[in-house]
Amino acid sequence: MNQLFAYGLGFVRQDHLGTLDVWFAHLACGGAAPALEKVLATNRKSIVTPISGAFGEKIKAALGASADALAPLLDERGSASPVAVTLLEDGPIEDIESAYLKLHLISARLKQPNTMNLDGLFGVLPTLAWTNLSPMRPQDVPAANMRERLRGRSLQVRLVDKIPPLTDYLVPTGVRIGDASRIRLGAYLGEGTTVMHEGFVNFNAGAIGPGMVEGRISQGVVVGAHSDLGGSASIMGTLSGGGTVRVSIGDECLIGANAGTGISLGNRCTIEAGLYITASTPVSVFDAEGARIGEVKARDLSGRDDMLFIRNGLTGGIECRTNRSKVELNAALHAHN
Amino acid sequence: MNQLFAYGLGFVRQDHLGTLDVWFAHLACGGAAPALEKVLATNRKSIVTPISGAFGEKIKAALGASADALAPLLDERGSASPVAVTLLEDGPIEDIESAYLKLHLISARLKQPNTMNLDGLFGVLPTLAWTNLSPMRPQDVPAANMRERLRGRSLQVRLVDKIPPLTDYLVPTGVRIGDASRIRLGAYLGEGTTVMHEGFVNFNAGAIGPGMVEGRISQGVVVGAHSDLGGSASIMGTLSGGGTVRVSIGDECLIGANAGTGISLGNRCTIEAGLYITASTPVSVFDAEGARIGEVKARDLSGRDDMLFIRNGLTGGIECRTNRSKVELNAALHAHN
Amino acid sequence: MNQLFAYGLGFVRQDHLGTLDVWFAHLACGGAAPALEKVLATNRKSIVTPISGAFGEKIKAALGASADALAPLLDERGSASPVAVTLLEDGPIEDIESAYLKLHLISARLKQPNTMNLDGLFGVLPTLAWTNLSPMRPQDVPAANMRERLRGRSLQVRLVDKIPPLTDYLVPTGVRIGDASRIRLGAYLGEGTTVMHEGFVNFNAGAIGPGMVEGRISQGVVVGAHSDLGGSASIMGTLSGGGTVRVSIGDECLIGANAGTGISLGNRCTIEAGLYITASTPVSVFDAEGARIGEVKARDLSGRDDMLFIRNGLTGGIECRTNRSKVELNAALHAHN
Repeated sequence: MNQLFAYGLGFVRQDHLGTLDVWFAHLACGGAAPALEKVLATNRKSIVTPISGAFGEKIKAALGASADALAPLLDERGSASPVAVTLLEDGPIEDIESAYLKLHLISARLKQPNTMNLDGLFGVLPTLAWTNLSPMRPQDVPAANMRERLRGRSLQVRLVDKIPPLTDYLVPTGVRIGDASRIRLGAYLGEGTTVMHEGFVNFNAGAIGPGMVEGRISQGVVVGAHSDLGGSASIMGTLSGGGTVRVSIGDECLIGANAGTGISLGNRCTIEAGLYITASTPVSVFDAEGARIGEVKARDLSGRDDMLFIRNGLTGGIECRTNRSKVELNAALHAHN
Repeated sequence: MNQLFAYGLGFVRQDHLGTLDVWFAHLACGGAAPALEKVLATNRKSIVTPISGAFGEKIKAALGASADALAPLLDERGSASPVAVTLLEDGPIEDIESAYLKLHLISARLKQPNTMNLDGLFGVLPTLAWTNLSPMRPQDVPAANMRERLRGRSLQVRLVDKIPPLTDYLVPTGVRIGDASRIRLGAYLGEGTTVMHEGFVNFNAGAIGPGMVEGRISQGVVVGAHSDLGGSASIMGTLSGGGTVRVSIGDECLIGANAGTGISLGNRCTIEAGLYITASTPVSVFDAEGARIGEVKARDLSGRDDMLFIRNGLTGGIECRTNRSKVELNAALHAHN
Repeated sequence: MNQLFAYGLGFVRQDHLGTLDVWFAHLACGGAAPALEKVLATNRKSIVTPISGAFGEKIKAALGASADALAPLLDERGSASPVAVTLLEDGPIEDIESAYLKLHLISARLKQPNTMNLDGLFGVLPTLAWTNLSPMRPQDVPAANMRERLRGRSLQVRLVDKIPPLTDYLVPTGVRIGDASRIRLGAYLGEGTTVMHEGFVNFNAGAIGPGMVEGRISQGVVVGAHSDLGGSASIMGTLSGGGTVRVSIGDECLIGANAGTGISLGNRCTIEAGLYITASTPVSVFDAEGARIGEVKARDLSGRDDMLFIRNGLTGGIECRTNRSKVELNAALHAHN
């Protein structure tokens, strides 16, 4: 028998048009718990299986002691609908349940960003109004608003989107998040990550941690350990003007407040506050002695280590200063000629 | 009989000091439904009329089949206060009910921004604490907080402002909104508009759509179709240093992340990421062949089509590159001499 | 008897691991109410004293007429835990209750930022998940989420942080706040301050007011009266590259949208939109006649009045224009030689 790719046990929420969302109380990648996988794999043809009766008992037995924390899920005591969602393989996303499982896997740190097939994600997810009550279709908001006002209350619609806020579903360990409305489910926040109020992290993107995020991490971008993303700093999702090359930021980098980059940075790089580097920006390169070596497009520097980018306050030119010698730099600059 | 300018049917919320807010379940501009207008116009002297008894029956009859969705409003079954708000003409705003009606009209796409008289808006609207329960006067917050804490709960004050978040009142069709706390009632979001988490849209401002808004649209600004406002991009409300000339952005424009403008853009314009154009900025203009034609203040370029603004990474100078010939540009540059 | 440094009467919220938060219904600095202080000082050895029985009666008597508003606190009618928190002196923070009292003192305008000893603040405050129900430890979120979903509701985790949003605790008089999730408890918002949706104010920081805040005020920064902080404008907490020198902004300053500063500004200073001044930025200085006097590092201009910073759109150089004569400026520029 092949391993399952991944699975989760949780509650599905539905209305008459179908599934609204899925929350997972327990999830894992294949290989983690063979006994449980064997039970789940009895329903190989179906991605979503209601948990009840004998199936629930078997899951409980396979989970052993850890079933206690899941008692409300396995004992059918509530009005919610418990389900097992199982993925045999990492194929394109074809249903809402798979989409939620994959987004949970990243945020639970079971998968890194960019390591799963997320094709079809936006196609299958419905746009919902996420309210202070529960998610609902946008067309159902007026009636719900009327009901709440008749009772002297207010309906609050917090977002109208396909992807909900991360922390409504799970809170990763060892993180701080100043404003949870800006972190989408599917964001990867490593241990020791602090996302201040101005920080934003998209799904399938994140920070390895520890680190400080006060800027915006676009879909597909991963920021390395001990890096600091200043207030309102911007990281483009792909090499600007470069199509599908994903931007990444290495370890121990500092992108200053209101700065930004459309190229990747290696380790120990700094972009000074307020400076935006796009791929097509011409940049003057200086060696460790401060001598000007030449000029390149920023895209030719993408991914290198130990770069300091500033805009010279007197000349207005953008400079890349390094701790490398002239010889090393000459070789690097001519690599693209 | 003159047409009504506009009207709405909804609930008013009041405390002992007066009206707090109005939510409309149904609203329209004059001319849309003559039978209903005839009923409403019987109370021409009053802007706000409680819906009850015979008046409610007449409204129901005039609405016909569409009265069903409004049953809770017309049947007085709840504790809320149903009212009809009618505006005979588009005069200055003199009461809270008119303010709410006009803000709703824009967000419901019945009126475009800058097409109504909003004088007096801030004068009549009270500053309220918008909480997880319902709006209240700021001076009533401490007692409410004490009550909630005695019950083991928390009062959450989400904003303290004169204008509430749009989606607490209505959700326009065909939009996505990442963080609804940043879109004010009175914002215009056209079909197909996506406002990401960093996007902000003030009242009497908006995007025609379809388009992507990850930046800030100031009061009075309208962004055209198929335009993209990058993360944290800024649009000033009026020509910077230019007093009352409103800034607008045309179709198919791209304002890059962390960029900004204090001048209007026509169609198909781009401002590169990180570059802020103010009206008094001197700009070098280049023709389609890349030849430098001359230099102008940015305000002299306000509203033109097909401009690409960059800051040269080597010289630090701001450049406007166009697809126009030298002759066309010369004529344009000298128009202000 | 020495005066108390400060005290507060409020509710403490606890779980089995200890104190979660404290909310104060009444707080004051020493010397404000001798009769009440005398009662509170009977428990000098304890910072936190439960309010009940005879102690409650004595507080009530000392408060006189103003005890009425605190009746629920003093009459033990609820399920919450009323306490008196008293600080004999302004020492380092060693417990959660003192931390909350000091943060409240700033936000209640009883203490200005940077005037109290806040050492130890982050060490004593637990990281909590602030939900739509009440704050809880992050490890308790999954069980709470399960409970809510069983009931057909949603748990919403609004932030995961050591410091909660200001307005969940108190709403300063005469302010407007567009998005309360971005103002931390411990922020100082003076009368007449408007913080728009993009504004952010950290604890122990703030704006004297009146003024407009659409940018980010870092920890330790104070902005003077009649100053305007544009959308997404950034103020570094300390002189950039300068270690522990706190940055401050004077009266009647304007920091443009997407601009920023790593130096202090005196009164009547302007930084144009999109320009970031760091301490190490070389700046050309111009006198009142527009003559170039010389060049300095921006840090040498820190704290001066009447500066206008722009980046020249033609040369790309950063310029500081003043209304001072050449003689004054020469003296100033040479003060650091």
